Amino acid sequence: MKEENIRVVNRIEDVRNTVKEWKNQGLSVGFVPTMGYLHEGHQSLIKKAYEENDRIVVSIFVNPMQFGPTEDLDTYPRDLERDSKICKDAGANLIFHPEDKEMYKNDFLTFVDVNGLTEGLCAKSRPIHFRGVCTVVTKLLNIVYPDRIYFGQKDAQQLAIIKRMVRDLNIDVEVIGCPIVREEDGLARSSRNIYLSTEEREAATILNKSLSKAKTLIENGEKSSEVIINQIKETINSEPLARIDYVEVVDNLSMEKVKYIEKSVLVATAVYIGKTRLIDNFIY
Amino acid sequence: MKEENIRVVNRIEDVRNTVKEWKNQGLSVGFVPTMGYLHEGHQSLIKKAYEENDRIVVSIFVNPMQFGPTEDLDTYPRDLERDSKICKDAGANLIFHPEDKEMYKNDFLTFVDVNGLTEGLCAKSRPIHFRGVCTVVTKLLNIVYPDRIYFGQKDAQQLAIIKRMVRDLNIDVEVIGCPIVREEDGLARSSRNIYLSTEEREAATILNKSLSKAKTLIENGEKSSEVIINQIKETINSEPLARIDYVEVVDNLSMEKVKYIEKSVLVATAVYIGKTRLIDNFIY
Repeated sequence: MKEENIRVVNRIEDVRNTVKEWKNQGLSVGFVPTMGYLHEGHQSLIKKAYEENDRIVVSIFVNPMQFGPTEDLDTYPRDLERDSKICKDAGANLIFHPEDKEMYKNDFLTFVDVNGLTEGLCAKSRPIHFRGVCTVVTKLLNIVYPDRIYFGQKDAQQLAIIKRMVRDLNIDVEVIGCPIVREEDGLARSSRNIYLSTEEREAATILNKSLSKAKTLIENGEKSSEVIINQIKETINSEPLARIDYVEVVDNLSMEKVKYIEKSVLVATAVYIGKTRLIDNFIY
Repeated sequence: MKEENIRVVNRIEDVRNTVKEWKNQGLSVGFVPTMGYLHEGHQSLIKKAYEENDRIVVSIFVNPMQFGPTEDLDTYPRDLERDSKICKDAGANLIFHPEDKEMYKNDFLTFVDVNGLTEGLCAKSRPIHFRGVCTVVTKLLNIVYPDRIYFGQKDAQQLAIIKRMVRDLNIDVEVIGCPIVREEDGLARSSRNIYLSTEEREAATILNKSLSKAKTLIENGEKSSEVIINQIKETINSEPLARIDYVEVVDNLSMEKVKYIEKSVLVATAVYIGKTRLIDNFIY
């Protein structure tokens, strides 16, 4: 049932026609939306999709709508040739790689927002980010119309928001979250890791270190978010190159802050290492 | 290819399963979203859908999200039995008649907005109306997944907004606008016409009368929106039971006000007759 080749298309119509052909043959379709510059985290999503579907579409689109005016849209790393090989090796069949103007006409006016879930955590320093994510994912789902869509747990807030959006708008797709993939020293894989100097790269391990300590604390019975947050902050602040954006303990569904850990929580942090903003988290 | 029976279902899953069965048989699906209390305007949409599709779904759902706090949500007329007969006679196969809680969970958080197009005309006196319309139509399209969706030209701004939303979000459906259906004396058909007393019912003809005069004016060469608007206002104000909400001449695509008529315009008015707000328009 699996195909050998990978095709790269730029046009919405080409994606639609290919997927419709597959569906007419009764094949299931998995979809992995990415901004490219793929790493082992993306690879794990594609591999998971490969296990669960007959055909895999990967989108590579650095979505301008989810970048703030001072963010790294222009410098965001791009390497289509390398990405194509990674996609093919992981089992993908089709890459959708549109230009901006294929996705956004000049007089584009429509936006999708998930209120509430998009207020805390990353939304504070990236206020328009999740509107951009929700809008582009809605568009991509309407273009690809897959059976299953795959996201990494690293972007935990994004995953929670997308799940809610899909439920609220009755989008006919299964949303699947996949575990964070890490470097050997524990740093969560991210396309932005290449921004780090050697020194910063070493300093960046502080995110996972601080979270691991916090996890042990919870495992040993600590229930107070304040205690946990302070412990994480203290650890991160011990690293001179690190500057905390946020450390939060929130309900894993509503993304609302919790004082005491009673049900499933997300412990999440965003930290600037030099100029590079990195995120990491765990669910307990 | 046509079926004889009409089925009424309340659950999203039932609609999905029925439509998927039809699609598996290669049948095309037309969809007419309504708030019920169907009149000849709706009938014309269903008939048009019947001409163009193998199967027809009509939704009957008084969408709370598109009503403002002081509007007529509770008193909006409802009559499912009568509606079912009208749907059946016009050729529909399935009525989707969900309860509020089937469409909106308690913790519903997601909204679709079309900025810009939703600022003038009806949006002034109904500020949250079009967000409600866009959100529910997105949901219904994801539930029904039809080939074609039908709207009346009476709600001209709604039609323009839906067309833009479908384009912007890459929703895979053809949006079809159908002409206004009128009573013998020219009053545009509306479920809200039943609110009118005998006296008000007569006064309500002033909307169409004023627009007809304006159309003649344009046909005779008048290009100034100001002149046209003043003529309409004067006519409406001659009717003591009428109170103008707005009279506007806008570009038929962007819904932006135009000073001089150069390309296709929408001439639209909303008028309170007693407590009942009625709308009417023509495209030139």
